[in-house]
Amino acid sequence: MAINIAIDAMGGDHGLSVTVPASIDALDKFSDIHIVLVGKQDEIEQQLSAYQYDSSRLTVVHAEQVVEMDDLPSKALRNKRKSSMRIALNLVKEDEAQACVSAGNTGALMAVAKFVLKTLPDIDRPAICTSMPTMKGHVHVLDLGANVGCTGENLTQFAVMGSVLSRAVDSNAAPRVGLLNIGEEEIKGHQRIKDAHQLIQNTSINYIGYVEGDDIYKGDTDVVVCDGFDGNIALKSSEGVAKMIAYYLKEAFGRNIFTKLAGLIAYPVLKSFKDKVDPRRYNGASLLGLQKIVIKSHGGADQYAFLQAIAEARLEVSKNVPQLISAEVSQLIQQKSS
Amino acid sequence: MAINIAIDAMGGDHGLSVTVPASIDALDKFSDIHIVLVGKQDEIEQQLSAYQYDSSRLTVVHAEQVVEMDDLPSKALRNKRKSSMRIALNLVKEDEAQACVSAGNTGALMAVAKFVLKTLPDIDRPAICTSMPTMKGHVHVLDLGANVGCTGENLTQFAVMGSVLSRAVDSNAAPRVGLLNIGEEEIKGHQRIKDAHQLIQNTSINYIGYVEGDDIYKGDTDVVVCDGFDGNIALKSSEGVAKMIAYYLKEAFGRNIFTKLAGLIAYPVLKSFKDKVDPRRYNGASLLGLQKIVIKSHGGADQYAFLQAIAEARLEVSKNVPQLISAEVSQLIQQKSS
Repeated sequence: MAINIAIDAMGGDHGLSVTVPASIDALDKFSDIHIVLVGKQDEIEQQLSAYQYDSSRLTVVHAEQVVEMDDLPSKALRNKRKSSMRIALNLVKEDEAQACVSAGNTGALMAVAKFVLKTLPDIDRPAICTSMPTMKGHVHVLDLGANVGCTGENLTQFAVMGSVLSRAVDSNAAPRVGLLNIGEEEIKGHQRIKDAHQLIQNTSINYIGYVEGDDIYKGDTDVVVCDGFDGNIALKSSEGVAKMIAYYLKEAFGRNIFTKLAGLIAYPVLKSFKDKVDPRRYNGASLLGLQKIVIKSHGGADQYAFLQAIAEARLEVSKNVPQLISAEVSQLIQQKSS
Repeated sequence: MAINIAIDAMGGDHGLSVTVPASIDALDKFSDIHIVLVGKQDEIEQQLSAYQYDSSRLTVVHAEQVVEMDDLPSKALRNKRKSSMRIALNLVKEDEAQACVSAGNTGALMAVAKFVLKTLPDIDRPAICTSMPTMKGHVHVLDLGANVGCTGENLTQFAVMGSVLSRAVDSNAAPRVGLLNIGEEEIKGHQRIKDAHQLIQNTSINYIGYVEGDDIYKGDTDVVVCDGFDGNIALKSSEGVAKMIAYYLKEAFGRNIFTKLAGLIAYPVLKSFKDKVDPRRYNGASLLGLQKIVIKSHGGADQYAFLQAIAEARLEVSKNVPQLISAEVSQLIQQKSS
């Protein structure tokens, strides 16, 4: 049976000009998926007319409203019940699709997804989890901004969810889970982190203890757990420094005719380097802890990046991620009460 | 009159093999400084014997103890009263030197410096402030890990201290000061950050409001203010991603004979790029809010990096940074009470 993926076709900075061609690419790449494009029907059909595709594998569902990138979550929830985001999530709720992919604004997506799809039993708060490159592969980091001021219990649930995700999608039998902290002795961390440090040790996951910001990229941790505030700071700072490095690298090679020539000669090398750390490859964050699968694409994603988010949705459907999380968390709760 | 700088010669991962030659370099580079090397006299003299220098500009002060990189701050404070770190700070206290530079462990240095030199009146907590490269120059970020769980008042004092530092050392008349936060609407930040946001608006500094992690590197902010936990996460994550990028860049050029040849041709370009983002250039964090000047060098600093920390000490002495901060903060307090 095909994996049915609902796409919020209007979401993101580029809307249909990215979501439609990326969906066509996904149909080409994955023979086992069916795509439902949700959004303004006439505009979607106009975009689609430029492509050749198997029309039996793509459906269009009309939605007259759009959640804007600066809409407040509360507004998206109350006043945008006919938005492409909401209707895409409704399709997942009604089992007409097994996952939703949206590049719409994060706060709105999380709020609407929580309302429509509900969190899993025993999960207090869903978390945003993305993978990032490391020196040895990749790492899953959660939470990245959905939850500010987590308790030790919240962080423990994140640890379990991240561990389950890594086991499922990386086929890693015992993912190494670290808790983000700072290295200063005696003043180490917030109370919630100390609490989580105790609680996670009582779970059956492969907990390796505290890690610091630079450990995210070393490749010796498979899952990094943190409060949404801290995760957002880590992610955004990393993005910022990577962009600055790219800027100076480009500037150095663009300086004059000789540096441009050197750049031309080094191009294949620079290209293979760039592919390795390309953030687009890692696009597609999971809203973990919901009853169904929702993948958040970066708002500024291009066609290639959005395709990765669709691929992530397909992978999580094939691995039954929410069911696995639910089983693991209820086991954890049983351990605690026994 | 010469600027007298006391060096904790035993501090850091490399100790004397870095601090001694960097001190000689500093004497060569800056004709207006005098260096006091504090540490094990015989070992220092043995190191010094390899160099030619003007002995009238360098003094050695013996210290029999060493604060180890993993000593707890409390232990350094109680049990290491004869350490090179403590004696170097004592020299500053007794006005025999105008600044202390140490690559010793951060927690110990902050604890001992606070005890020996005291904080300025009206400053509740000193902060660690470093400068970092941006796309347009550099930015000062504080606090980087000395204070976890700051109040709005603490953050406001940091904002004033950072603004004064930038005015003094960058000759920037109205440094743009931003407060580190995350971008999610409605769940924005911790209470302390919201409090600081209100309080800083009542100061006379050029406050530009909230900034996010990636804004640190854009060059549109001169001072970024944050809790020590958040600053440490931002700094370490940035270091981690920069190291990973350097690793993959090196790997791409080292892959085979052709890529190595390309690397050889591109070498001058890669070198000029590397110089631009070289973290060693930015070595030397200020312990702001103390009555005297203390500069913390990275523990792993090499000779060039440690020289930059000495240069930072010299600059802050010549600009009277603590006095400027003191004047500005008391003005702020007066404004509040009037």
